[in-house]
Amino acid sequence: MTARPANAHQARLLRLLRDGGPSSRAQLGDQIELSRSKLAVEVDRLLETGLVVGDGFAASRGGRRSHGVRLAPELRFLGVDIGATSIDVAVTGPELEILGHLTEPMDVREGPVAVFERVLSMAGRLRESGLAGHFDGAGLGLPGPVRFPEGVPVAPPIMPGWDGFPVREALGQELGCPVMVDNDVNLMALGEQHAGVAHAVQDFICVKIGTGIGCGIVAGGTVHRGATGSAGDIGHIQVEPEGRPCPCGNRGCLEAYFGGAALARDAEAAAREGRSAALAARLAAAGSLGAADVAAAAAAGDVAALDLIRQGGNRTGQVIAGLVSFFNPALVVIGGGVTGLGHTLLATIRTQVYRQSLPLATGNLPIVLGELGPVAGVTGAARLISDHLFSYTPT
Amino acid sequence: MTARPANAHQARLLRLLRDGGPSSRAQLGDQIELSRSKLAVEVDRLLETGLVVGDGFAASRGGRRSHGVRLAPELRFLGVDIGATSIDVAVTGPELEILGHLTEPMDVREGPVAVFERVLSMAGRLRESGLAGHFDGAGLGLPGPVRFPEGVPVAPPIMPGWDGFPVREALGQELGCPVMVDNDVNLMALGEQHAGVAHAVQDFICVKIGTGIGCGIVAGGTVHRGATGSAGDIGHIQVEPEGRPCPCGNRGCLEAYFGGAALARDAEAAAREGRSAALAARLAAAGSLGAADVAAAAAAGDVAALDLIRQGGNRTGQVIAGLVSFFNPALVVIGGGVTGLGHTLLATIRTQVYRQSLPLATGNLPIVLGELGPVAGVTGAARLISDHLFSYTPT
Repeated sequence: MTARPANAHQARLLRLLRDGGPSSRAQLGDQIELSRSKLAVEVDRLLETGLVVGDGFAASRGGRRSHGVRLAPELRFLGVDIGATSIDVAVTGPELEILGHLTEPMDVREGPVAVFERVLSMAGRLRESGLAGHFDGAGLGLPGPVRFPEGVPVAPPIMPGWDGFPVREALGQELGCPVMVDNDVNLMALGEQHAGVAHAVQDFICVKIGTGIGCGIVAGGTVHRGATGSAGDIGHIQVEPEGRPCPCGNRGCLEAYFGGAALARDAEAAAREGRSAALAARLAAAGSLGAADVAAAAAAGDVAALDLIRQGGNRTGQVIAGLVSFFNPALVVIGGGVTGLGHTLLATIRTQVYRQSLPLATGNLPIVLGELGPVAGVTGAARLISDHLFSYTPT
Repeated sequence: MTARPANAHQARLLRLLRDGGPSSRAQLGDQIELSRSKLAVEVDRLLETGLVVGDGFAASRGGRRSHGVRLAPELRFLGVDIGATSIDVAVTGPELEILGHLTEPMDVREGPVAVFERVLSMAGRLRESGLAGHFDGAGLGLPGPVRFPEGVPVAPPIMPGWDGFPVREALGQELGCPVMVDNDVNLMALGEQHAGVAHAVQDFICVKIGTGIGCGIVAGGTVHRGATGSAGDIGHIQVEPEGRPCPCGNRGCLEAYFGGAALARDAEAAAREGRSAALAARLAAAGSLGAADVAAAAAAGDVAALDLIRQGGNRTGQVIAGLVSFFNPALVVIGGGVTGLGHTLLATIRTQVYRQSLPLATGNLPIVLGELGPVAGVTGAARLISDHLFSYTPT
């Protein structure tokens, strides 16, 4: 995609077509403050750029046939979601619908060179599959703080070797298209906002419980990244003074008690100490345990596994209760790898939040699981880069 | 003031003149994206409305005389800050400079009718003093959650009789001018942003420790009020599971341990139980104790008073540390009645925050006392109403 919107009206029209799909000129006119003639001029200009094409099937109103338009169907966005232990790569069409999606295990600690080699190989496979001849832009999420918009990771605790690596620039050169980089949790929030449970919600938080615990914050419709890009870093909020040591150097952090890593550790301890026959059997079979094992044991009624989920949910709920009092969101979304723990986890978190926050903040507050699961991050990544490409900055 | 800006450019020009004072047309042109001729048209229109007047003394550039302009000097804003136990009323000029300021003790629990009678009497005295012949608009802060922009208090815990009272409408009728109403802590944040320590800061939190504890949140330059107007209600974040009972019905809330009310209670207990001769002497003399007594005893080296401040600072710092991890502000401002406790309090809060939050969030994070003291709220109130009047909403 070489063409870009030439003014703020064109940028808005491109976003409306991305989010609303094929539309008649009348439908676009209802959503934008432009006279009929000015709208016609801008739409015609977009048609000339090739970003927008005519769409004969758009709904018509009244007796007259309305000339429908849509985004060029050959637009392709690449969404990349790098987690602590996995990589997701997806290609989307113009309306951010997922056309193809690959996921592979990989340890982010192998460093940027090895990780990007893998990302490029996965993107190459998507390209060869015929789903995408090219990419018009790529969005990428990293499991740590990112200096935005430069796209550079900053002091990422679980990503040795990534500090200061020019991710945006390097990947842009390799892919030959514009790239935007953000924290993985912000992208999960963007994904759920675009196509999931937070659709059209202006103020919400999205808590991702994966290997670690983080939080995406949407305030007034846009992602709040904070003064240094570390907003939402709630895994190191203290839940127990003088509690368990945490790899960050402090004691009693939420992540020292919950999240994938702590849960695996506690489950293995329960198995070894004879507190759970179910977990012990799984440990003997697999050599290690993860959130999925705890979920399976809990589903089978294992008391120790249920206790682990409830204890983790209590501590997470305690932290979320504070955030709800502070931020007063309209919605709390829970996502990430441990959502397999499902409704036991959700129920425990809800109980804590509803008990601890004031009624005014919780009166109409849904606390729900994310809807998009493993495609939340890549959808958010495609949304991030399309927001960038479908924007206008005066020069 | 009957005239209002007729478009977004005029609104922006009015705000630039409010915040920057008398300016030449060239200076305005540097700050606004308008061609020279269009700028001239909008300035001339503002001159016609009377909102703006010529200012012969504006700085000129180069050889040619630049025609300076300024806001009409007779513009007057009323700022009202209703606290739990006091009322502040001030009148400002067009650039929100305080021309006169009255403060009187009054218990907000006397209810809206009695409180507004007092506010109107104080405003009348300011009018009679010759400082203001009229008010072009009034801003008002209340010590509880407010449904914004309707200007109606919602379930305010310390304000029985105020729930649902149409403050904005009632006061607007009495004063005969537009009124905007907000939470007192949001107005403190707006005040410090306009004329205080947070000047030009885009992302900060302002923690007010008065009778209770609340927090104003500025995200991307604007106040974040939350889904139901209760954002920043941090006084009821739990700091001690199964801790002290709180009037809100929960246990272990921050406000049950600190803030003016808890501090007075703890100081009186220390005096009665023989733990502090200094506090006992003050209690005998006055019959009750407050934050000022604790501050005076601490300044004289009283160990029990210092302990009370440090314990309160620790718990407050523990909560702020979590908020810093979550929100990643560029600045934390501490204000309100207990700022008389001064540097012992500030040092304790700093120690907790710097110890518990990650280096990325605290690396360049100043934690400072507010600069405006008792005029922060009324300055913020004037800012609130002038933001409203100097804005343009297409109809």
